[in-house]
Amino acid sequence: MATSLEFLTEALRRLPGVGPKSAQRMAYHLLQHDREGAAMLSRALFQAVEAVHHCALCNTFTEDEICGTCRDEDRDKRMLCVVETPADQMMIEQTLTYKGLYFVLMGRLSPLDGIGPKDIHLEKLVERANDGVVGEVVLATNFTNEGEATAHYISELLKARGLKVSRLARGVPVGGELEYVDAGTIARAMLDRRTT
Amino acid sequence: MATSLEFLTEALRRLPGVGPKSAQRMAYHLLQHDREGAAMLSRALFQAVEAVHHCALCNTFTEDEICGTCRDEDRDKRMLCVVETPADQMMIEQTLTYKGLYFVLMGRLSPLDGIGPKDIHLEKLVERANDGVVGEVVLATNFTNEGEATAHYISELLKARGLKVSRLARGVPVGGELEYVDAGTIARAMLDRRTT
Repeated sequence: MATSLEFLTEALRRLPGVGPKSAQRMAYHLLQHDREGAAMLSRALFQAVEAVHHCALCNTFTEDEICGTCRDEDRDKRMLCVVETPADQMMIEQTLTYKGLYFVLMGRLSPLDGIGPKDIHLEKLVERANDGVVGEVVLATNFTNEGEATAHYISELLKARGLKVSRLARGVPVGGELEYVDAGTIARAMLDRRTT
Repeated sequence: MATSLEFLTEALRRLPGVGPKSAQRMAYHLLQHDREGAAMLSRALFQAVEAVHHCALCNTFTEDEICGTCRDEDRDKRMLCVVETPADQMMIEQTLTYKGLYFVLMGRLSPLDGIGPKDIHLEKLVERANDGVVGEVVLATNFTNEGEATAHYISELLKARGLKVSRLARGVPVGGELEYVDAGTIARAMLDRRTT
């Protein structure tokens, strides 16, 4: 087999979720059917590694010093929403219900994977939240065990510094039928019930 | 979001089996945790696109005009084994039971996907098999519907030119328990039974 091909297969295995068989299939596919795509991916990777950095304020990926969202003068600077990933931020943006700023952790606390407070930039978050303008921090980490633990940890950290901290509401999803919602969610929705 | 990031996500979708969500996850992972891997993959893709071509004889991927297997003087030039992919060739090599040469189709006939005889280089195969030295062509395409159809098509093509054509035996896998083997395989094994 060709050396360049082995090198390519090995490099493709660096992608998350790609094992030896998939890597080989990808390499064959690119060389056999999509050399243009391979060249394009090569350029895209090179360009992204060169150009993409973290926003000095919110920590998301950007090609500038400060990202577009943080530079947006129309946003409410008193609100700071903490999310795990840029994808989560995008989901919240799509709801059109939030007009404040963001802080992107780029991860979550996960002691088992060796991901501690430093890896999710909590020092940077504390500094950002204590700029004197931010009045409320909305924790929008995932509602997984790790996301909840991360939210709890950040909450303690920021409340100790006198900041108001809130968490996205948990409950029955919109359109959800009780019959098909898990008991934990219903229990939480019962506890958090609102008077109408 | 950054333009380089969007470009990278789009380029990652060119990989087989990678949808929008996976592409985004891969892009985030590379930029956040493995920029070295991203740079390596970029180089590997560039290098492979530049260097890897098809062997003039057996059609497999190689960086030379003729691949190492075809150049190997110790191989039996009277035998030609037809496989779908280089991975299949490697599996056969690992058995150490075959010392002839190969022809790699780089695919299989699949009318539904628009893959016809030209796409799997059957003209090149016919020319190759009619070099006056090859005496037997062993069809080792997969035992899927498409692989079987491909084998049948090639068989007719080569037999019409007076070549001896054989097919890998079908039957119960080594170590297979009849109870767990499908009826079609057992039926085939019964038809192809051998006197001992």
